[in-house]
Amino acid sequence: MPAYATTMRIKFPVLALGLEVVTIILFALFAEYDDGKGHGHHPEPGNSTPHAAPEDPMSLYPMFQDVHVMIFIGFGFLMTFLKRYGFSSVGGNLLLAAFGLQWGLLTQGFWHLTDGKIKINIFKIINADFSTATVLISFGAVLGKTSLVQLLIMTVLEIGIFAINEHLVANVFEANDVGASMIIHAFGAYFGLAVARVLYRPGLKNGHENDGSVYHSDLFAMIGTVFLWMFWPSFNSAIAEPGYTQLMAVINTYLSLAACVVSAYAISCLVEHKGKLDMVHIQNATLAGGVAVGTCADMNIGPFGAMLIGFVAGIISTLGFKYLSPILAAKLGIQDTCGVHNLHGMPGILGGLAGIVAVALGKKDGKAAMQAAALASSLGFALVGGVITGFIMKLPFWAQPPDQNCFDDSIYWEVPEEEEEHEESLTAEHYKNKAEV
Amino acid sequence: MPAYATTMRIKFPVLALGLEVVTIILFALFAEYDDGKGHGHHPEPGNSTPHAAPEDPMSLYPMFQDVHVMIFIGFGFLMTFLKRYGFSSVGGNLLLAAFGLQWGLLTQGFWHLTDGKIKINIFKIINADFSTATVLISFGAVLGKTSLVQLLIMTVLEIGIFAINEHLVANVFEANDVGASMIIHAFGAYFGLAVARVLYRPGLKNGHENDGSVYHSDLFAMIGTVFLWMFWPSFNSAIAEPGYTQLMAVINTYLSLAACVVSAYAISCLVEHKGKLDMVHIQNATLAGGVAVGTCADMNIGPFGAMLIGFVAGIISTLGFKYLSPILAAKLGIQDTCGVHNLHGMPGILGGLAGIVAVALGKKDGKAAMQAAALASSLGFALVGGVITGFIMKLPFWAQPPDQNCFDDSIYWEVPEEEEEHEESLTAEHYKNKAEV
Amino acid sequence: MPAYATTMRIKFPVLALGLEVVTIILFALFAEYDDGKGHGHHPEPGNSTPHAAPEDPMSLYPMFQDVHVMIFIGFGFLMTFLKRYGFSSVGGNLLLAAFGLQWGLLTQGFWHLTDGKIKINIFKIINADFSTATVLISFGAVLGKTSLVQLLIMTVLEIGIFAINEHLVANVFEANDVGASMIIHAFGAYFGLAVARVLYRPGLKNGHENDGSVYHSDLFAMIGTVFLWMFWPSFNSAIAEPGYTQLMAVINTYLSLAACVVSAYAISCLVEHKGKLDMVHIQNATLAGGVAVGTCADMNIGPFGAMLIGFVAGIISTLGFKYLSPILAAKLGIQDTCGVHNLHGMPGILGGLAGIVAVALGKKDGKAAMQAAALASSLGFALVGGVITGFIMKLPFWAQPPDQNCFDDSIYWEVPEEEEEHEESLTAEHYKNKAEV
Repeated sequence: MPAYATTMRIKFPVLALGLEVVTIILFALFAEYDDGKGHGHHPEPGNSTPHAAPEDPMSLYPMFQDVHVMIFIGFGFLMTFLKRYGFSSVGGNLLLAAFGLQWGLLTQGFWHLTDGKIKINIFKIINADFSTATVLISFGAVLGKTSLVQLLIMTVLEIGIFAINEHLVANVFEANDVGASMIIHAFGAYFGLAVARVLYRPGLKNGHENDGSVYHSDLFAMIGTVFLWMFWPSFNSAIAEPGYTQLMAVINTYLSLAACVVSAYAISCLVEHKGKLDMVHIQNATLAGGVAVGTCADMNIGPFGAMLIGFVAGIISTLGFKYLSPILAAKLGIQDTCGVHNLHGMPGILGGLAGIVAVALGKKDGKAAMQAAALASSLGFALVGGVITGFIMKLPFWAQPPDQNCFDDSIYWEVPEEEEEHEESLTAEHYKNKAEV
Repeated sequence: MPAYATTMRIKFPVLALGLEVVTIILFALFAEYDDGKGHGHHPEPGNSTPHAAPEDPMSLYPMFQDVHVMIFIGFGFLMTFLKRYGFSSVGGNLLLAAFGLQWGLLTQGFWHLTDGKIKINIFKIINADFSTATVLISFGAVLGKTSLVQLLIMTVLEIGIFAINEHLVANVFEANDVGASMIIHAFGAYFGLAVARVLYRPGLKNGHENDGSVYHSDLFAMIGTVFLWMFWPSFNSAIAEPGYTQLMAVINTYLSLAACVVSAYAISCLVEHKGKLDMVHIQNATLAGGVAVGTCADMNIGPFGAMLIGFVAGIISTLGFKYLSPILAAKLGIQDTCGVHNLHGMPGILGGLAGIVAVALGKKDGKAAMQAAALASSLGFALVGGVITGFIMKLPFWAQPPDQNCFDDSIYWEVPEEEEEHEESLTAEHYKNKAEV
Repeated sequence: MPAYATTMRIKFPVLALGLEVVTIILFALFAEYDDGKGHGHHPEPGNSTPHAAPEDPMSLYPMFQDVHVMIFIGFGFLMTFLKRYGFSSVGGNLLLAAFGLQWGLLTQGFWHLTDGKIKINIFKIINADFSTATVLISFGAVLGKTSLVQLLIMTVLEIGIFAINEHLVANVFEANDVGASMIIHAFGAYFGLAVARVLYRPGLKNGHENDGSVYHSDLFAMIGTVFLWMFWPSFNSAIAEPGYTQLMAVINTYLSLAACVVSAYAISCLVEHKGKLDMVHIQNATLAGGVAVGTCADMNIGPFGAMLIGFVAGIISTLGFKYLSPILAAKLGIQDTCGVHNLHGMPGILGGLAGIVAVALGKKDGKAAMQAAALASSLGFALVGGVITGFIMKLPFWAQPPDQNCFDDSIYWEVPEEEEEHEESLTAEHYKNKAEV
């Protein structure tokens, strides 16, 4: 593939500026501040939970900021584990989430118009941030193998499809998914895996020298891991019913994640060569408890129930990284860079199933079927939407990287010359050669 | 310049301990906790906005912590992009902000005494943190070319001048500047640029080998960028009127920043060689939307109005980095290390102008003139104050670094021997030589 | 010591999974959500302070999240300063804290049963996070010289002993220790030092090549330092009486830390070679003000009183790192990797003494003696508990590392091959040799 094909020089600015201008126009037409005086200012219908009492429009703000940190620091740094792809990871994450939240406000808002307008409040911007999480999960599946042009297209399509499925789950099925195990985690993972399958690159079958970490890139990734881990109770409780229900969502998530850490470490040690821990497991599988407890976080599953869910999620996720991911890549052609199937896919389904069981045990007639419909719908929209999106992303003029430039920032970013201070200690000759590169 | 001239051994401890002792004495004389029983416990006059209802003195605390993170992590890590100046950046930031917030409490407090005392509450410590932001912005302009002795002097003078200008803007002009585009961002930037002009170093005209980044230093800087970006809605709304006005300030900042990211990325790609993104733009210009929407964040400019401001700010800021900064350095002798003119200077003026327009359109008679006076006053105090401060900092006994030691931690910090694990893989001879250095 | 002795392959998974299963069973038997309807739902007796008003069970949640960040990011990254021990530091911190918070909920909860159950609420999970801080402080003393098997054993024992001492201090002595200078900081430090003494390694008397930092590991550590520094006001005020008392705790901690930074920098410069600052001091001694003001944070010591405490703490802590730590290692055989004696030990005692003085000056009869008893009890339990725990940890089958593998992640972690991109620029021959290692 000749070099000019991969430059984003014209394509990316045109697409980005075009999308932003259209978005601003749509906001001018449809978006207003929520001033608390809306015609019939009812609790938000989405997710079947009322939002903050109308008298304090800022009461959810600390929750929002926790979620905001998960989206921009959590997801962004989690993906910096690759040795030469940190700029694209944290930088791409910032771009996709910043555009995505605007797009999510619109696509979700069109389902919930008040007097023909989208009334923006804290509840709505939490959901806008949530909508970007689907894209960031899918981003993980195709990390290193796509251009920002392709990824912007994915953002537009995925958030649009997400908003349809969310509407169906929350308002038609009236299913419970407070922490979004199904509508965000499973959806985002299987959407991304479908895209990855369509974009399959046989040339990477035997690996790529840059598809790995270095010591400090693994530490940068841990910044993402730990911020995600800490604020996950906010993610799962942000839109829960205020009061004791919200408290329950916090406690369930807190305990599920704690139990998950212990089982993920134990299994990582058990399955690895010489009993050594693997950073990939620690960075990812420790979070599976937050995903898996999402759907039933606000249900009365008992503290020990939450811990059981996290405990099992940590085991499944670690085993998935160790044994399932290589099979998916080799047999099914699904090259899942970050292993989102193990962190978001399987634990998301586990969360959906746990929700069905919890609702069934709660003896709410007919509700379990609606939970099952929600899970099926999320997976269906993800797979079909992902395949279609994948084929659009595969069109040959979106500046995609050639195989040999995958996992390498320098194709799309100005990258500083390599740490000259090391080379300086070498011979001057070497240094000169280097500078000329 | 002989080596002994640059040691801080005596000068720095004497100055720092002396300043701290004086500060503690002033606190003993003038500072008290705000116990809610103050004589005439009115809303704070500063910024013409009431603070939290007296019945909960902690209601602003989460906002305070967000601002606190911006000051210490945000500004601190944003400046770690230089390859060999990370200790000075995050460490200098911590020192200047920690002393500055004490000094700011005093200098701002003297304008608002209650019963002859400064009554400390959350509103006051938010404003103390704010006052340090001016110094941290100016620090960016002279980064790498000043000693901590010089910087402590700058802190004392700049925060004092800031407090005068703030009093004028808020209490005399009664201008609106809720997010401080004028009194912090434009002020801090032009103050720092004036200092940088006075401290002009012809020896650095052709650049310096350490005035650049390495791969991982750019990732450290992104920690600063992303934390600033995420919490900026808190910065612009922390002292807004509680309730829907504060909500509006949050939403305007959230949307302005989101639009700004998209335009900054697009323009960076457009102007760079081969359409590659430039980390300098991504680290900085993505934040310009937060600066530019500051003054009118709590005004009813509409969601799309906020987005327009952010969109334009992202463009102006990126173009400034690319085309204006080199001209300022070459023609005007302003060596602006971090490009604060592009992140805080121009967007700050844009914010002030947007505030004038918004007020004028709001048909508040006479108010627009007061906004203009506030902008002029902020620029005037900054430039005059910066020049005077610059000449004081230029006195030849403040342990300033020689040109060749600029941008290098090792002149003021114990720096670990260079990553021995790399050298170990080289010849033993080389390693020995290294160890003897 | 043969290699098989150090593998954790079987020991660690068995211990970790066993502990977690037991913990889940205990939760099933004893733990419930606090639904606000508990029999006699009184304020928490612990720490003699009432918790949030029952009508909003989430009011302490933002405080909880600040403390959560200190535990997982703060402590975790503070210990990443070692050049080759970052995985173990931040990863070990995550494991110990995640298990410890579950264990702490149980061991603290058994002293405060309601209707035979531990009723989990935000107040309780704050205290659970607090309990893990003791272990993380002790972890700092033995960092680099212990296996995760040993550390899990330490976690179980230390948190159990902590819960006994806390009960004694809070409920029997009814002493004040709102910021836990005594029951967490002094306790954790002297417990860890006692363990370190028992585990004394003569083979490390002359240092170890990996017992030091590299440039970027020092920057990672600063992430920990700054997050601890920023959120310390939340740590010291989280369980204070709501309202003006809590405000006072925030302001005292804010000011103590600010003054501490200035004195720590000044003394570091004064005592170091050529007046250079030492990163070890900056990373640690700047935090001593938060420790030292802990006990009397919620007392009316005046803003300047808080600053004086911080100022003195910064001096003592820095001098401790410079002069005392080498003596403890050489004369007493206490190899304190992170210098927890200087950050938590001495400042913790200073905090306890300041509390005695503040209570005595407050003329509360008999209270000063109770404060002194609390300090003595904390030190006694720490030293005796630490020695016993140390001997248990010394049993020769806990997969402890041999001297030559201390401070090295690669004994327990899969570590990526060393930054190939540097070597690639060297000769191909060298690269090949490297790859074969």
